[in-house]
Amino acid sequence: MRPAARIGDSVEDIDTPALVVDLDALERNIAKMAAFAAAAGVRLRPHAKTHKCPDIARLQIAAGAVGQCVQKVGEAEALVAGGVRDVLVTNQVVGESKLRRLAALADRATIALCFDDPGQVDAASRAAVEAGVTLGGLVEIEIAMRRCGIAPGPAAWDLAERIANAPNLEFRGLQAYHGEAQHLVGYPVREQAIQGAIEIVRASVAALAERGLSCAFVTGAGTGTFPFEAASGVYNELQVGSYVFMDREYADVGGQDGGLYSEFEHSLFVFATVISTPAPDRAVLDAGLKSMSGEKGLPRVHARRGVEAARLSDEHTTLRVDADDLRIGDKLWLIPGHCDPTVNLHDWFVGIRGGRVEALWEIAARGASR
Amino acid sequence: MRPAARIGDSVEDIDTPALVVDLDALERNIAKMAAFAAAAGVRLRPHAKTHKCPDIARLQIAAGAVGQCVQKVGEAEALVAGGVRDVLVTNQVVGESKLRRLAALADRATIALCFDDPGQVDAASRAAVEAGVTLGGLVEIEIAMRRCGIAPGPAAWDLAERIANAPNLEFRGLQAYHGEAQHLVGYPVREQAIQGAIEIVRASVAALAERGLSCAFVTGAGTGTFPFEAASGVYNELQVGSYVFMDREYADVGGQDGGLYSEFEHSLFVFATVISTPAPDRAVLDAGLKSMSGEKGLPRVHARRGVEAARLSDEHTTLRVDADDLRIGDKLWLIPGHCDPTVNLHDWFVGIRGGRVEALWEIAARGASR
Repeated sequence: MRPAARIGDSVEDIDTPALVVDLDALERNIAKMAAFAAAAGVRLRPHAKTHKCPDIARLQIAAGAVGQCVQKVGEAEALVAGGVRDVLVTNQVVGESKLRRLAALADRATIALCFDDPGQVDAASRAAVEAGVTLGGLVEIEIAMRRCGIAPGPAAWDLAERIANAPNLEFRGLQAYHGEAQHLVGYPVREQAIQGAIEIVRASVAALAERGLSCAFVTGAGTGTFPFEAASGVYNELQVGSYVFMDREYADVGGQDGGLYSEFEHSLFVFATVISTPAPDRAVLDAGLKSMSGEKGLPRVHARRGVEAARLSDEHTTLRVDADDLRIGDKLWLIPGHCDPTVNLHDWFVGIRGGRVEALWEIAARGASR
Repeated sequence: MRPAARIGDSVEDIDTPALVVDLDALERNIAKMAAFAAAAGVRLRPHAKTHKCPDIARLQIAAGAVGQCVQKVGEAEALVAGGVRDVLVTNQVVGESKLRRLAALADRATIALCFDDPGQVDAASRAAVEAGVTLGGLVEIEIAMRRCGIAPGPAAWDLAERIANAPNLEFRGLQAYHGEAQHLVGYPVREQAIQGAIEIVRASVAALAERGLSCAFVTGAGTGTFPFEAASGVYNELQVGSYVFMDREYADVGGQDGGLYSEFEHSLFVFATVISTPAPDRAVLDAGLKSMSGEKGLPRVHARRGVEAARLSDEHTTLRVDADDLRIGDKLWLIPGHCDPTVNLHDWFVGIRGGRVEALWEIAARGASR
């Protein structure tokens, strides 16, 4: 798909629907998180599943990030091709062909991945041996997210030893991300959830130390909880992703407790055109579920009063118009419900500043779910 | 993105996540709807927003369809490039560049689009004159969907006259699709909703006839209601889309009333691999919201008892395991919640028959929302 604009175009001339990034807001978000991590004395390894874009990865690294996190081998390939030299797959990688592809990246970049089962360790070791490279290995432990992750205990410490002893693998530490905590309403509720995780992680690090295994990496945290992990004294790396863009759902959670989420600005928008004004209280935009992910609810109309999203269908957003004079051809800014899967629907970011298109960034890992 | 398999591969060797089509089921669905339309004496113009794929469009046309419907100019471009020669845009097209792109297709294909406002008619006429082509024009009327569509009445008949009189436009008839009716639970409830629409359409055709305007096209209907429109004596074209694939939400609606939906088979699946079995009652797949649209809820696990989807996150489906012995590396078939936006997440259909990969079809209009 072609980009929706050319460099230098006026913002109003961007074709729609388009995924637009406010570059000033993006840069402020990147700088703020980098300054936080530096002051807290923890490493910052932002999650590229949010942006899927080497250009944004490079901005984060230029601001001090040590590398990037990804969920999929395809994302790692796109980042390494785009110049990123340190990638952690915060996920299990299953299947010989995927492990071969991952190992092939390790001659140009530092690559690590997560394990929660012995068979995965053996398979990754075989792929690393075959490629003649070393892969870093982390044990993903269960800290109340109830998704992947081995329960802390002897089997988990055995798994760490298995990594340490496996040919061409190197034990690097613990993956301990609490995804659900990001979306809990209430600062103290999130804090309490993360305190529970911190105690589990602290005990795990101690148990591994008793076996002579040290955790160079204790990594986790998201945009909703990172100050807790950073202050823990045990986490030493933050995997925050959404802070670069923010979205309607994160803003809603933050709006209810005046908490962390308001520290970051909305920098990501879907730009859409009014294509129909069939009734005084209704207008329809040319962007729907194929331009914005809908599972976290409706987008928010930005910087325009008296208009709100009422319904999202495949290619339309139906607006409820209370007190506005929308006309066909007018263009509106929408804040998507959920940033990560929205980005995955687009091939390009259109970066704007001062009313002009300044950057066109390919979303190189769009669709890279394998 | 590369395809997830090669022609001739065994089904079990398809890389995951992959969007897989059961070719036998697909062909039966296509044949069944074609036979229905032929017997009912109505034209069939399937909606390509479902499949976004010229290969499937050509199968539908070979079975008797008169052409294809689309929602976006980009979809029309992909279909015409793939050999489709009759395309109806069932939507308003706003913006000079989009109208120019649409007009540029009309030298190779019969192209029509919908209007619900006079300014749209004038703009399309200018684009058609500039390109030296004729564009067909339909009036989209409001029949209770409350999205786009002009209310039936004098302003709507004026709009039809405006199309008929506009240079290089040709008035073709009425667009009257009742999207919401497709998802109403209960055969009689859907029937009643469509009867209301039919009365509005019948009166509109009569009002236009009084002004000397005949409706060559009276087009609408979806997979949940098409027999009602087909039997109306006033609709002469069906725009059904989802019947080729079906999905979990359509099946749920059908399951509650034993109605129409059970006539068609699930032919569309997301193929996914178990990457983690961290607890006896839990397993995790490598496919999530970036492989399956989530706004209509969870996918259904196909052909495997004792396992169901419990949660969908960006790149994972967490399974509740009651009575199964899932192992890491096992591959499962998921029926997505909503077919159309799921297809839009993928670049290829992997077509299978008899346990082998028989076809790789590019989803040429993936992401073509402009």
